[in-house]
Amino acid sequence: MTLPPEFSLIARHFRPLAGPGALDLRDDAALLTPPPGKQLVLTADAMVAGVHFLPDDPPDQIGRKLLRVNLSDLAAKGATPLGYLMTVSTPRTTPDAWYAGFASGLLEDQAIYGCTLLGGDTTSTPGPISLSLTAIGHVTPGMSVHRFGAAAGDGIWVTGTIGDGALGLQVALGRLADPTGFLLDRYRLPQPRTSLRIGGIASAGMDISDGLIQDLGHMCRASNLQARIEAGSVPMSPAARQAGPDWLKTRLTGGDDYELLLAVPPNREAALTAQGIPVTRIGTFHSGQPEVIVTGASGEPLAFDKGGWSHF
Amino acid sequence: MTLPPEFSLIARHFRPLAGPGALDLRDDAALLTPPPGKQLVLTADAMVAGVHFLPDDPPDQIGRKLLRVNLSDLAAKGATPLGYLMTVSTPRTTPDAWYAGFASGLLEDQAIYGCTLLGGDTTSTPGPISLSLTAIGHVTPGMSVHRFGAAAGDGIWVTGTIGDGALGLQVALGRLADPTGFLLDRYRLPQPRTSLRIGGIASAGMDISDGLIQDLGHMCRASNLQARIEAGSVPMSPAARQAGPDWLKTRLTGGDDYELLLAVPPNREAALTAQGIPVTRIGTFHSGQPEVIVTGASGEPLAFDKGGWSHF
Repeated sequence: MTLPPEFSLIARHFRPLAGPGALDLRDDAALLTPPPGKQLVLTADAMVAGVHFLPDDPPDQIGRKLLRVNLSDLAAKGATPLGYLMTVSTPRTTPDAWYAGFASGLLEDQAIYGCTLLGGDTTSTPGPISLSLTAIGHVTPGMSVHRFGAAAGDGIWVTGTIGDGALGLQVALGRLADPTGFLLDRYRLPQPRTSLRIGGIASAGMDISDGLIQDLGHMCRASNLQARIEAGSVPMSPAARQAGPDWLKTRLTGGDDYELLLAVPPNREAALTAQGIPVTRIGTFHSGQPEVIVTGASGEPLAFDKGGWSHF
Repeated sequence: MTLPPEFSLIARHFRPLAGPGALDLRDDAALLTPPPGKQLVLTADAMVAGVHFLPDDPPDQIGRKLLRVNLSDLAAKGATPLGYLMTVSTPRTTPDAWYAGFASGLLEDQAIYGCTLLGGDTTSTPGPISLSLTAIGHVTPGMSVHRFGAAAGDGIWVTGTIGDGALGLQVALGRLADPTGFLLDRYRLPQPRTSLRIGGIASAGMDISDGLIQDLGHMCRASNLQARIEAGSVPMSPAARQAGPDWLKTRLTGGDDYELLLAVPPNREAALTAQGIPVTRIGTFHSGQPEVIVTGASGEPLAFDKGGWSHF
């Protein structure tokens, strides 16, 4: 009996990604034995061509981005990646090379981040490529980090540099020069901070995916605190600095950073900074109305008419 | 700060579905404490408008079908549902009433099947509505059922009646009459067999979603056995009988049954039939080339040019 194309697609491109418990992607469901004594952390994100990535982005980078945006959520909760399930809906005209590239990117990242494919589904669609991924991680009970939990006096910290992803999108759209290719790479390929230990250190945490100011606003509401940050202290890459001060709003409100935003009590700052991963304090949480106040070099408040980026 | 539409959509329609560990859908990820000593069973399915459901199907039934096709996979592995994550990509023009209907169907089914929403993502799409759901269940180690594991001499059993879903699709397409509405309902609303206990009873199992013959072929290959079934013994509903013998091929090769296909050793048949859920023996597994042999009333082999239905 000849199997329909769905099955050979899975066999050729996705079976090599399957890990323990995936039953070789030949069954209806995967089996996962949770690490003893651990809690699981679960997150799901969808990506649609034309909304979350550009249709002609390299397929290996699309695969990696799909996995990494979810691993970034796990990192923000202090969880260690275990595995993932994925659904892939593609037009019938999608060439085989697209799937091959997509899977090769995932395979590379599985090795980097220590996780494997557990299961999923492939279907056709008359519309744009639609991808969905559910990532599963584990955490020691009591060591997970949430958006709530920050206290007045906690420092507001970010990892890495902020705004490169948003500027990279402008590069992809032809609106900004990027001589080194750094910004475009930051847009296409998030670097989830899975190696930063935040459990027991950060009082609250999340990843910055929809823009620093909007995401910080979420943390303010979840913790019922006011955030005050200084625009000049938000770390920027040499390439972002090169773009110039006109791009300040884009950097602070644009999406696709996938850095971590953390609330850290002063007495735990050393445990954060000692890990050798770049972290920068950009402000402080205060009692007050949940809102984000951004000030300029002379302490003047800066206004942003749009807090961030919504995929809706 | 005004939140973008994505957040109010989640608050209005999806927050009421959130269960323990979902953190009120206000965080980046859910926390799940696995039941002590259990394994987890994980499955994911995507549904796209125009491929898996008709664009004008009632939204509550679309939501219920999305959940139920996944619960059917859990049932086929002998797992008890725990919860699910879901991603929903919809055109910006989708009316609010669609989300309200979609969520109301899920809420009803959460009560029926004992599971809650853990997390997910909502995005826009320029294409058709694209849905993806990852369901999580638990099972006692050693009691999960797989496509492999059947032995020569095991009976081939199915739950309920076969072919109603495929006939219901023909009704929806205006090609078949359905005076009672039974077939259309079977197409739109699968009845996952979550209450049938199969762990320790079935030597192999799967759900029938892509057509009896194709799915039985999967089990043959996974167990390296030949299946012989008699067309006349495949149970049919009164509505399917009413449709007449011309629809035999549609019944045996069409999709959307979501009944269970089981291999059961003769000495465990009583444990299966005693549960009060309709089950029917349709044939036997034999040693030999992995294939499905279907015979007619006088033992003559019947040929089917297409084993089943591929969504690709």
